[in-house]
Amino acid sequence: MTDRPVPHHPERSTLHDLEQGVPFVDRHIGPRPAELSTMLAAVGAESLDALADAVVPECIRDRTPVASTLPPAASEPEVLAELRALAARNTVTVPMIGLGYSGTVTPPVIRRNVLENPAWYTAYTPYQPEISQGRLEALLTFQTAVADLTGLPVAGASLLDEATAAAEAMTLLRRAGRATSPRFVVDADTLPQTIEVLRTRAEPLGIDLVVADLDAGLPEGELFGLLLSYPGASGAVTDPSSLIAEAHERGALVAVAADLLALTLLTPPGELGADAAVGTTQRFGVPLGFGGPHAGYLSVQGKLARQLPGRLVGLSRDADGNPALRLALQTREQHIRREKATSNICTAQVLLAVVAACYAVYHGPDGLRRIARRAHRMAAVLAAGLRAGGVGVLHGEFFDTVQARVPGRAAEVADAAHAAGIAVRRVDEDTLGIACSEVTTVEHLEAVWAAFGVTADAAALDPATEDVLPPGLVRTTEYLTHPVFHEHRSETSLMRWLRRLADADMALDRTMIPLGSCTMKLNAAVEMEPISWPAFADMHPFAPEADAEGSLALIADLERWLAELTGYAAVSLQPNAGSQGEFAGLLAIAAYHRSKGEAHRNVCLIPASAHGTNAASAVMAGMRVVVVATSPTGDVDLDDLRAKIAEHGPSLAALMITYPSTHGVFEARVREVCDLVHEAGGQVYVDGANLNALVGLARPGAFGGDVSHLNLHKTFCIPHGGGGPGVGPVAVAEHLAPFLPGRGGADGVGAVSAAPYGSPGVLPISWAYIRLMGTDGLRRATLTAIAAANYVAKRLGEHYPVLYAGEHGHVAHECILDLRGITRDTGVTVDDVAKRLADYGLHAPTMSFPVAGTLMVEPTESEDLAEIDRFVTAMIGIRAEIDRVAAGEWPVTDNPLRGAPHTAACLIDKWDHPYPRELAAYPTGVTPGVHDRKVWPPVRRIDGAHGDRNLVCSCPPVEAYS
Amino acid sequence: MTDRPVPHHPERSTLHDLEQGVPFVDRHIGPRPAELSTMLAAVGAESLDALADAVVPECIRDRTPVASTLPPAASEPEVLAELRALAARNTVTVPMIGLGYSGTVTPPVIRRNVLENPAWYTAYTPYQPEISQGRLEALLTFQTAVADLTGLPVAGASLLDEATAAAEAMTLLRRAGRATSPRFVVDADTLPQTIEVLRTRAEPLGIDLVVADLDAGLPEGELFGLLLSYPGASGAVTDPSSLIAEAHERGALVAVAADLLALTLLTPPGELGADAAVGTTQRFGVPLGFGGPHAGYLSVQGKLARQLPGRLVGLSRDADGNPALRLALQTREQHIRREKATSNICTAQVLLAVVAACYAVYHGPDGLRRIARRAHRMAAVLAAGLRAGGVGVLHGEFFDTVQARVPGRAAEVADAAHAAGIAVRRVDEDTLGIACSEVTTVEHLEAVWAAFGVTADAAALDPATEDVLPPGLVRTTEYLTHPVFHEHRSETSLMRWLRRLADADMALDRTMIPLGSCTMKLNAAVEMEPISWPAFADMHPFAPEADAEGSLALIADLERWLAELTGYAAVSLQPNAGSQGEFAGLLAIAAYHRSKGEAHRNVCLIPASAHGTNAASAVMAGMRVVVVATSPTGDVDLDDLRAKIAEHGPSLAALMITYPSTHGVFEARVREVCDLVHEAGGQVYVDGANLNALVGLARPGAFGGDVSHLNLHKTFCIPHGGGGPGVGPVAVAEHLAPFLPGRGGADGVGAVSAAPYGSPGVLPISWAYIRLMGTDGLRRATLTAIAAANYVAKRLGEHYPVLYAGEHGHVAHECILDLRGITRDTGVTVDDVAKRLADYGLHAPTMSFPVAGTLMVEPTESEDLAEIDRFVTAMIGIRAEIDRVAAGEWPVTDNPLRGAPHTAACLIDKWDHPYPRELAAYPTGVTPGVHDRKVWPPVRRIDGAHGDRNLVCSCPPVEAYS
Repeated sequence: MTDRPVPHHPERSTLHDLEQGVPFVDRHIGPRPAELSTMLAAVGAESLDALADAVVPECIRDRTPVASTLPPAASEPEVLAELRALAARNTVTVPMIGLGYSGTVTPPVIRRNVLENPAWYTAYTPYQPEISQGRLEALLTFQTAVADLTGLPVAGASLLDEATAAAEAMTLLRRAGRATSPRFVVDADTLPQTIEVLRTRAEPLGIDLVVADLDAGLPEGELFGLLLSYPGASGAVTDPSSLIAEAHERGALVAVAADLLALTLLTPPGELGADAAVGTTQRFGVPLGFGGPHAGYLSVQGKLARQLPGRLVGLSRDADGNPALRLALQTREQHIRREKATSNICTAQVLLAVVAACYAVYHGPDGLRRIARRAHRMAAVLAAGLRAGGVGVLHGEFFDTVQARVPGRAAEVADAAHAAGIAVRRVDEDTLGIACSEVTTVEHLEAVWAAFGVTADAAALDPATEDVLPPGLVRTTEYLTHPVFHEHRSETSLMRWLRRLADADMALDRTMIPLGSCTMKLNAAVEMEPISWPAFADMHPFAPEADAEGSLALIADLERWLAELTGYAAVSLQPNAGSQGEFAGLLAIAAYHRSKGEAHRNVCLIPASAHGTNAASAVMAGMRVVVVATSPTGDVDLDDLRAKIAEHGPSLAALMITYPSTHGVFEARVREVCDLVHEAGGQVYVDGANLNALVGLARPGAFGGDVSHLNLHKTFCIPHGGGGPGVGPVAVAEHLAPFLPGRGGADGVGAVSAAPYGSPGVLPISWAYIRLMGTDGLRRATLTAIAAANYVAKRLGEHYPVLYAGEHGHVAHECILDLRGITRDTGVTVDDVAKRLADYGLHAPTMSFPVAGTLMVEPTESEDLAEIDRFVTAMIGIRAEIDRVAAGEWPVTDNPLRGAPHTAACLIDKWDHPYPRELAAYPTGVTPGVHDRKVWPPVRRIDGAHGDRNLVCSCPPVEAYS
Repeated sequence: MTDRPVPHHPERSTLHDLEQGVPFVDRHIGPRPAELSTMLAAVGAESLDALADAVVPECIRDRTPVASTLPPAASEPEVLAELRALAARNTVTVPMIGLGYSGTVTPPVIRRNVLENPAWYTAYTPYQPEISQGRLEALLTFQTAVADLTGLPVAGASLLDEATAAAEAMTLLRRAGRATSPRFVVDADTLPQTIEVLRTRAEPLGIDLVVADLDAGLPEGELFGLLLSYPGASGAVTDPSSLIAEAHERGALVAVAADLLALTLLTPPGELGADAAVGTTQRFGVPLGFGGPHAGYLSVQGKLARQLPGRLVGLSRDADGNPALRLALQTREQHIRREKATSNICTAQVLLAVVAACYAVYHGPDGLRRIARRAHRMAAVLAAGLRAGGVGVLHGEFFDTVQARVPGRAAEVADAAHAAGIAVRRVDEDTLGIACSEVTTVEHLEAVWAAFGVTADAAALDPATEDVLPPGLVRTTEYLTHPVFHEHRSETSLMRWLRRLADADMALDRTMIPLGSCTMKLNAAVEMEPISWPAFADMHPFAPEADAEGSLALIADLERWLAELTGYAAVSLQPNAGSQGEFAGLLAIAAYHRSKGEAHRNVCLIPASAHGTNAASAVMAGMRVVVVATSPTGDVDLDDLRAKIAEHGPSLAALMITYPSTHGVFEARVREVCDLVHEAGGQVYVDGANLNALVGLARPGAFGGDVSHLNLHKTFCIPHGGGGPGVGPVAVAEHLAPFLPGRGGADGVGAVSAAPYGSPGVLPISWAYIRLMGTDGLRRATLTAIAAANYVAKRLGEHYPVLYAGEHGHVAHECILDLRGITRDTGVTVDDVAKRLADYGLHAPTMSFPVAGTLMVEPTESEDLAEIDRFVTAMIGIRAEIDRVAAGEWPVTDNPLRGAPHTAACLIDKWDHPYPRELAAYPTGVTPGVHDRKVWPPVRRIDGAHGDRNLVCSCPPVEAYS
C-alpha cells in the first residue's frame, strides 16, 4: 500500500502552504490517505468524521472549537527552535544543594545507547518475558547492585523516587510486622520531601506519623516501624545499629533511607540489622532533570521478599531448561489485588534503572568507590577549609554534605555562591548545606570558600585532613562481585553489551505493540531530543526559581494545554506515574468533601471492569471500595449503580470510571452515570487511561468528570522505557483545584512525589507532541486510532469473537478478542497465541485484561496499514493453526502454538515434533535477505511458577548459563 | 578476565587525583591492566615500554617529550564543555548563500537512527557483503534515487563532493570518449569551487581546461568533454540540449552538474542527452557542517557504467539463489590498478549517502517535489518583490537562486541581511545572490527585501507571480517509483526500516572488526555527540569568517596538534579523504620541485607492497611510477632502491613509503631509505595509513618524511560510517608548507576539495579524541595496539604462519596470516575463512592485502582480551575445521567453510550436507539467552561474478525477492 496517487498538488499550493513543510501529524500518523480509505471502507464508514459520529455518543461530543489557547501545529524545526529558546531561559549551575539530588555524569555511551536508543526507550513493560530478556537482564543487574550495596538480599526493579519508596517501605513494614501500633517513627534528619510524602500517604491509612529527633534515642511508646536516614538530610552519618536494635526489641521493623553511593564506603543497612532500605539511584548517572524521572529503590531482608511492592525480576527456566528471566510474584498492575491491594504501584522507573545499572556496570565496585571517595574527600576538605576560616561546621562525621553556620548570613553566602555559578542549600537564615558529588572539583571548593569569605588551600588541607566517616562504620564487605560488574569497563565492551541486550528484545522499533490500554504509539525523535540537552537534563529540582524560568514556562504551558484538552480547570504534573495521579485525584476528592464538612463520605464505587489500580488507589486514599456490576455488553450496569448509590448515598465519595471503558467501548449513558453520582453528592473520577480515544472529540471535564489522571506515557508520547518512567498528571475541575497535591492551604493535600514537578526531565516530550500536532492533529490522531481499532475488529471478527461493541457495533480505540471459547474447545490458550505471535515477529496484545481469557488489541494511530495487516495476517494464520489442533492434526500438548516461542537453537538441534521446523520458525514463509521481519526470541516459553517457587532476584552465577 | 585486583587505591588518592574521574583513556583502551599483563606475558615482554623498545627501531624513536602544545588529557565532561564553548563562538545564520550548499532539514528520525546510531556509523566498507546487506540496500536506494532524478541509469554509491565528482567526470569522459583532444570546456556559470578543483586536477594530467561563457555557444575547436551547469552557479536555468548536441557532434562527451532537488521539477540531464551528471546530495537532509562531509554523486549512461570511479553497489545472488547485494566491478581501493589507475578514489561518503537516501525514502517523490516547489516559489516571489521594489534581477528563469544588482551597494545590503540573521552571497561589489531552500520562509523573504530597502507583500505577490522555470524544461517523467520510496512515510515505518537494515549488518557495536590497515577502533559517543549540535552542523562553508570563529579555532587547534604529533610544520585539513590527501601531498612535492626550477623531477618510487592508491595518486599528480622491490622479509629492498635511484636520479621526485609497512612491520632501515632519497634530491612521502602504530612513539616528520597524509578515520577516530566519510589531512615539512592546497601564491597548489576545510562537520570527533587522550594516552593507545597485534600473532602463529616480522620477531600493530599453504594443500581459501568467521559472529580481517591469499589482522587498542580471545578461538576452531577437510572428512566442496556463511533459513529447511546443522550455526556451541553472540547473516555466500556479468545497480522490482 503506497501513498500514490498524490493527495497534495504542490503546483497549486500557496507560498504559505509550502512553507509549512510536511506536517508532523503526517509523520506521527501511520496510515496514508489511501490506506485510511481502505480501513474506513472495511469498517463501513464514509470518512473519519462519519466514523466519529457513529462511534462517539453525541451526548459527549465536543462540537464547539476547543483549546483556544493551544497554539496551531508547528513544524519539527520550529518546535526544536522553541524548545531551544525555553532551554536558553534556564541557568544551569553547579549542583551543591544536595537534598537527595546530586551532580553526576551520565556516561555518553549510556546516554547514546540507552537514553537515546529507541530499542531501549520504546520498549514496553516486560510482560512478555521471552522477548524482553535484554531489559530483564539489565533490571536484574540493577537489583543485584542495590541488593549488594544495601546488604539486603532482595531488591525490586525500582520505584518512583526516594520519597514514595519510603512510603512503600512504611506500609510494607506495617503489613509485614507483628506490631499492632499505628505509629511510624521517622528520623527528623530525613529529607523534607520524604517526610512530606510520608505524611500524605500516612494520613488516609490511619498511620500515626511521628517525626522525631533520634539523637536521644527512640521516643517512648509503641511503634510498628521506624525510618532512619543514613546519612541524614543534614549530611551527618551516625551509627543506626542501636536504634535498629531497640526498635526490633519493641517489635517494630526498620527501614533505612540510604545513599547508595555512600554505601560503597559505609557498612550497609543490611549488616546493621535493618529490615529494608530505600533511596534513589539518581546519582548513578541519571540526569537531575529538574527532579526526575529517577529510579528509587527498595530492598529487603529475604523474609520480606514476597511483600515487596512494584516489580521484581526473577530467574526461572524456559521450556528447554535454560535460565530465563521474568517478572516474579505477579506484583504487577494487572495482578494488583484491587481493594485488597497493599500498594497501587505499577510503573517502575525502568529506563532510569537501566541507566543506573549500566553506570554500576561501567564503573564497577572500584569505580564507584572512587567516585564516593571523591565526594567524601571534597566534603572533608571543604569542611576543614571552612573551620580553618572560622566558619562553624555542624557535624563531625558526614559523607558528602557539609552544614555550616553563618548566623544571619545564609542568604548572602548563598547569593555569593550563586554568583560564582554554584547552587548551595539555604537550610535556614543561619545555616547552609553544601553537598559534594562526582562533579565537584577543587575549583568549586574554592568558589564556595570565597562565598563564605574564607581563603583556603585545598592542596595543603588535603593531606592534613582525615576522613570523617565514623571509623566503626567503614565498610568491610565486598559488593558488585558478579562478573557483569567487571567485564564491561571499556566503552566498546559496554556498547556491545547494550546492543546484545537490546537485540534480545522487541520494542516499537521492530514491531507494533498492540497492547490494549497501553497506547504504544510513536515516540518521535524530535520529541526525545531535547531531554538530553543540558539545560533541561542538568537542572536541580531545588534550584532557585529564577534559574528554571524555561522549565517553569514549559510546565505552565503543558498544564494549561492539558487542562484545555481535558476540559478541566487545573492540572498538576507532580504525580510521577498514573497510580500517583489516581491517588492524588482521590485525595483531592476526599479533601474537597472534608472542606465541605462531609469527611464521612468515604465510599468509592468502582465498576467490575476497572483497572486494578483504581481500587488500590481508593484504599490508599482511605476510601472503601464498592464494586458496581457491568452489564453483559460491558457497560456500567445502571441498575446496579442506582442500587449502590441508594445503599451508600450519604457516604458516597466518588465513582471511578474509565472512559471509554476498559472494554474498549464508548458507553452512551456516561452522562447519566455522572449525573447519578453528582445527584448523590459524589464526585466523578474519570480514569484517563483511554484518553487516546477522546482527545479532540470529547473532554472528560465537560461530560461529567470532576477529576482525571492522564498517562502522558500513553496518549502524550512519553516512551514506555521498558516499563517506566510514567507521568500521571492529575486534572481537576475548578472546585477541586485547591486540593491539587502540594498546593498548600489549610485543607490542602500534601505532596505525592519527591520532586515539586514530578518528572520534568521528560516533559519536553509531551510539550513537543502537543505543539507539533495542534488541536486538529490531535483530533485526527484520535480518529485514526479509532478507525484502526475498528478495522482490526472487523478483519479479525470473522476469526475471533469481538467481545464488546458500542451501540452502533463499533469499538472505540481498542478491541477485545475473546478466546475463551477457543480455549474451551481446543485447549489453546491466550498464552499460546501470545507466544506464537513472537514466532511471527510480533509483540502480543494485552493478555487477560480486563477479561480473563481474552486479548485486547490497541493498534493506535501510528501504525500504518501494512503493519496492521501483518498483525491481522498473523492472527488469521494462528487461527488456522488453532483449527489444525482442533481437528486433531496436532496434539494440544505438542503443536506450534504450545511450542512457541521457538528459538533458533531449538530448531537446529534435534527435532521430534509433529510440525515441521519451517513452520515453527517461519509461519509466513521465508523472506530472503534484509526484507525479512524474523526476530529470534532468545529463550523459549518461560516457566513462571518455577521461578516463583525458587525465588532468585539477583544475577545468578555464570555457571547457571553453562 | 576482570579488572580485579584493583589497580588504584582510592584511599590513598589525593583530591587532585580523585577529581580526574575515570580517565577517558581507560575507556578507549580495551584491555584492563591484568589483561594487558596476560598479553605481554604471551608476547614475552616485561612491559609496554619494553615491548616498544623491542618493536620500534631505536633510530626512529622519539625519546624527547613531544607535543608541548598538546594540552593534557581532559575528562569527558570537560571536553564537552570546551566544545560547547567553541560552539558558542559560532553564529549560525539562515543560509541563503547558495553556491551548492543549501538549507535543509535533517529529519530527527534520521539523525537519531543513522547519524547517531553506532550500528550505522561504526560499520566498515561493505567488503564482506554477506554481513553488510543493510547498508548496501541503503546505498542501492541512494543509487536509485540519483539515477531516477538525473535520468541516467547508473549512479555510483557516492563521491566526495560535487567538485571532485566533476573532476572524476572530467577524467571519465576523457578515457571513455573517442576524442583525442586534451581540451575540456567548462561552463563559466559553474560553481567557483568546482572550477578550482577541476583546474587542480586537470593541470598534472595535461588536460587543457577552458572556462567559457556558453551563452554564445561552444568555443571553437576540438574538445573531449564539456561540463554544463544546470542550474548555473548564478541560479539561471537554461536549456543545455543544443550545447550537448553540438558537443556530441564534435565527438565530445558531456557531463552536467545538476542540482538534484531542481531535477524534481526540471527535465533531467539524461533526457537532454547528457552522458553523465554530477552534483551533491547535501540538500537531501545532510547537515551543512561548514562544508562537509556530504555525498557527491556521479551518474552515467549505461554504456559508461564500467568506467565509473568509486564504489558501485550491484545486485547479484547468493548460494541459495536469493537476491543479494555487493560492491560491483571491483572499483575499490584494493583493486585500484596502481599505476594503471584512472582514479585514486576509495572512500565514498557512505554515511551521508545513507542519510540522503533515507531523506528520499522519507519524503518520496511528492515530498521532494513539494520541497523543490517551496524553494522555487520562494525564489520567484523574492525576485518579484525585488523587481517591484526597483531592484534589478539578473535572470528571468531560475530554480531557487536570485541574483540581484545593487550597483556599489552589495556589501551594505549583505551586511543589513546579516544583521537580520541571514547570510546572502556577495557575488561582486554590485551583485548579490540569494538562494532559497527547504528552510526558507516568507519571514526570510521579508528580511531580505528589507535589507535591500524594499517593501513587498509576499501574500499579494504569490498569486500574481508565475513560475520562472523554462516551460520547455518542465519535467514530465516519473521518478522514485520504486515501492521503497512510498512505504516509509511515517516515522514509525522509517524507524523500523532503519532498524531492520542495521540488524542485517555487523558493525563495531556487535563485533571486533580486525581489519588490517583500517584501524577499526572505538568511536566514542562523547566524540560523536558534538557533530549533531546546530552550531557545528548548520554552518555554511562560505559563511563570513567572523560567524565561524569557533569552528575556525577548532580547525586551528587540530591542525597544530596533528602537526606536533607527526613532526611536521603544517597541516591542511582540506583533503576530504585519504586519497585526496595523497594527491595533495604529491602536488606539494611537484610544486616544490617546480619552484626550485626542477619541474623535470617526475619519477615517483613506490614499493611493491604499497596501497594501490599510492600509485594512482602519483599518476594523478602527473608523476611516473617506478616500483621498488620488497625483500623476502617484506622490507623495501635497499639494493633495488639504490638501483632505481641511480637509474632515475635527476628525475627523482619522490618515494612513497608506508610506515610501518603495509606488511605490518617496522622496517629498521627506514632512515637509510629516507636518506638515500634525499641525497638524490627526492622528497619522501610517508603514507600515514599505519600511523596508529606510531603516535607518541615516532614522528614521520622527524625520521625523514617530508610529507604525509593522515587518515583521521583510522587513527583519529572518525567513524568509518559504512565506507565513509574519510578525512585525509596532509601534513608537510616547513619547506612544503607554501604548497598546501588552496594556500595561494604564485607557485601554490589549487584546491583539492569543494569546501575550504574539507569536512569540518566531523572534525570535532578527532579534536575531542586528542583532547581526551593527551600525549600520554595517545602513546599508551599505540603501545596497546602493538601489544594486541603481537598477542594475536603469537596465539595464532601456531595455527597459521605469520608472514612478516621485524628484526626481533615482532610485528607492528597488525599481522599477516598466510593461508597460501593451506589453500594449496586443502583447497580452503581466505574467502572460506572470512565467510566462516561470520558464522562465528565475527567480522573478517582484511583479505588478500597486501599479499594475495593472506588475512591481515589489526586488533587495535580498543578491543579487550575477551574479544581478542573470541577471535583467536574462532580462528583456531576454523583451523581445526580446515584440518578435517584436509583429512578428507569433508569434501572441499561441501564443508562448513565452503558453505559459510549459513543463514537461519538454510539450516531450518532441508539439510543434506556432511556436517551437522549445529556445527554450521553454532561452531562454538549454543549459549542460551541474551549471552549468545550469534548474529545471523541475512544471505549466504554471494556470487560476485554473476552480478558483474549482469549489472543491476538500482533497486530491483519487488518480485526479485519472491
